[in-house]
Amino acid sequence: MSSIFSSPNPILFGQGVSKVIGEKLKEFGCNKVLVVYDKGVKAAGIVDKILGYIHEAGIKTVCYDGVLADPPDYTINEAGALGVAEKVDSVVAVGGGSSLDTGKGARVLLSNPAPISRYYARPDSPPPLNQSPLKPIIVVPTTSGTGSESTPGAVITDTENNCKQIIICPISLGIVDPELALGLPADITTATALDALCHSIEALTSRTPNRFSETLGKEVVTLISKYLPIAYKDGSNLEAREGLQLAATLAGMSILGPFCHIPHDLGQPLGAIFHIPHGIACAATLAESMKFVAPDVPDKVRLVAECMGAIVPSKASSEEIGNIAYDSIRKLTNEVNLPGLKAFINTKEELLIAVPDILKAAFFMFSPSSVTPEDVKEILDKAYDA
Amino acid sequence: MSSIFSSPNPILFGQGVSKVIGEKLKEFGCNKVLVVYDKGVKAAGIVDKILGYIHEAGIKTVCYDGVLADPPDYTINEAGALGVAEKVDSVVAVGGGSSLDTGKGARVLLSNPAPISRYYARPDSPPPLNQSPLKPIIVVPTTSGTGSESTPGAVITDTENNCKQIIICPISLGIVDPELALGLPADITTATALDALCHSIEALTSRTPNRFSETLGKEVVTLISKYLPIAYKDGSNLEAREGLQLAATLAGMSILGPFCHIPHDLGQPLGAIFHIPHGIACAATLAESMKFVAPDVPDKVRLVAECMGAIVPSKASSEEIGNIAYDSIRKLTNEVNLPGLKAFINTKEELLIAVPDILKAAFFMFSPSSVTPEDVKEILDKAYDA
Repeated sequence: MSSIFSSPNPILFGQGVSKVIGEKLKEFGCNKVLVVYDKGVKAAGIVDKILGYIHEAGIKTVCYDGVLADPPDYTINEAGALGVAEKVDSVVAVGGGSSLDTGKGARVLLSNPAPISRYYARPDSPPPLNQSPLKPIIVVPTTSGTGSESTPGAVITDTENNCKQIIICPISLGIVDPELALGLPADITTATALDALCHSIEALTSRTPNRFSETLGKEVVTLISKYLPIAYKDGSNLEAREGLQLAATLAGMSILGPFCHIPHDLGQPLGAIFHIPHGIACAATLAESMKFVAPDVPDKVRLVAECMGAIVPSKASSEEIGNIAYDSIRKLTNEVNLPGLKAFINTKEELLIAVPDILKAAFFMFSPSSVTPEDVKEILDKAYDA
Repeated sequence: MSSIFSSPNPILFGQGVSKVIGEKLKEFGCNKVLVVYDKGVKAAGIVDKILGYIHEAGIKTVCYDGVLADPPDYTINEAGALGVAEKVDSVVAVGGGSSLDTGKGARVLLSNPAPISRYYARPDSPPPLNQSPLKPIIVVPTTSGTGSESTPGAVITDTENNCKQIIICPISLGIVDPELALGLPADITTATALDALCHSIEALTSRTPNRFSETLGKEVVTLISKYLPIAYKDGSNLEAREGLQLAATLAGMSILGPFCHIPHDLGQPLGAIFHIPHGIACAATLAESMKFVAPDVPDKVRLVAECMGAIVPSKASSEEIGNIAYDSIRKLTNEVNLPGLKAFINTKEELLIAVPDILKAAFFMFSPSSVTPEDVKEILDKAYDA
């Protein structure tokens, strides 16, 4: 078993650290920055705060507020073109994963010819390195989920081929300030934190185990189990917000080696077909997936359950371990009112009819157990009823 | 409180991973490599193994075996000159911290004018960046202590000014193979693992707390407490070797933000004045230091004790917490026969006479408690008797 670890993105973490963003941009030699965000994070007042800090440092800003969920290629091209036209020398991305990934894409286009589709990573060849040195980018996550601040990639919707693509773009600095998450609504807190929980649990139980990911993953599962119920009930609890922000950042680091498996493999197409928010779609099959993989990785599933606070008897069978992990996950998701698949899909038949389409998009490359179409049907069937 | 995290060195970890070193050198485009090591690691048969893997990939080697402990500047200049004369295009460093740091220094000189003293980092100015792009370097640690594979710096002895200097040199790849540590003698196992334990405990209790370091540090303390006694008794226990190698690598990452404090601050001059191996000199005051800082960081010292397996009552006073941590550390160091200061210093008077010289070299910049000369005297006095 070999583990690879590389965490290329420097991260500045802590309450109030977003205040130093102007200073950091100056250290990078920036004078005019493209600020990328969506309208929600602007409405929450966060963008104005960040713009204020940047202006205080005497740095000019140009705003792109056209970020969309599952960022479509054309928004990246728009943001990049705006940056080029305005001759900016850097990018700041503020918001959830979509804002961060849009910013990462726009940054590539500041010093490389458009469109962004030229820079998609291909599974059969090394990622196409960008031709020119990239300009500085600082990303400022305002949700506690995606972990895009820790990963060098960005996920972009290829609207021509109707699929997701990845570009490779390590960032200059991530600024993770728990105070920015204080106003996050309870339902988004749940959906994003469960995305991070999936990242860490899938990395922990991946087919390619990784000792570094294990270290980080254990901390993530412990933090989210402790702090998500608190932040869900009281969004203004800063200690809980800090715990969740740290968890999401560590979870991003934890997937850099082993990657995700069943819950994300199924969650991506489920989300696309039935318009389910990413975190909810992934978390929908998390408990069932742990029961499913427990026979192949009982020690890892035991670790997940124990980090969630369960007591697992030392002689528990792998089936018992799977059941305990299942119960621990269900207890947490019930406590924070995770909407089930029923909230998005009218009948189970509708879900099962979609299985062939789901299978077309899901490869289960990192699942520790082999997965048949029948297994997928059963996992979805049970997840629908839960 | 803000935490910064950046782990710039990619690490490949696992049993048997050193076998891929030739392949990795080829991926980096290397044809002729300078292999840097000391005579001990050569005598242990490890160098020949690594040379074999490199030759199998069709890559030529030039050997530098003049590595010395606390690597003196002139050895770096020698190794660099050999590499330049032989027109190598890369470096592989094999061994403990001294070999790794010598290799890091030699690598700078492959593409930058000698001597190495041109590249010392200065406290009053940013580290002098090397002028030319650096050639690839792979480091292969064979002890479980220094963590030099995770840190971008190298510590070099400046023989002109009789002090330590630092150069900045992130590596291309660290290859950490627990199998290479199987033959490490028990006393070196103890000394190096306790160096790693000091790294993690000092980072955990530093004046500049860091959430990332905390996550890594907890794992390190848990791993060393569990596996050091096993590896000490049975050097051929591969699971224990793997645990210690992982711990040392994580410990190196954990000090990148908060740095070390009292045990290392005192250990450096103690080692230099009384010729005490680095890990033993640092560990000599670890237990006393925890007792000393407990009033200022009781929660952190509690964490250390708990990761070492102690049960700390929830209402324990900071004094009680300090005592429990003290006992946990002493129990571990006794179990693995850590030599005390008495083994190196004939009388306590001799030690106390050296206090002014020790104070000249120790700044306590990262200690969570302020440290007076009287405190240092008391810590050393008690450490001598322990």
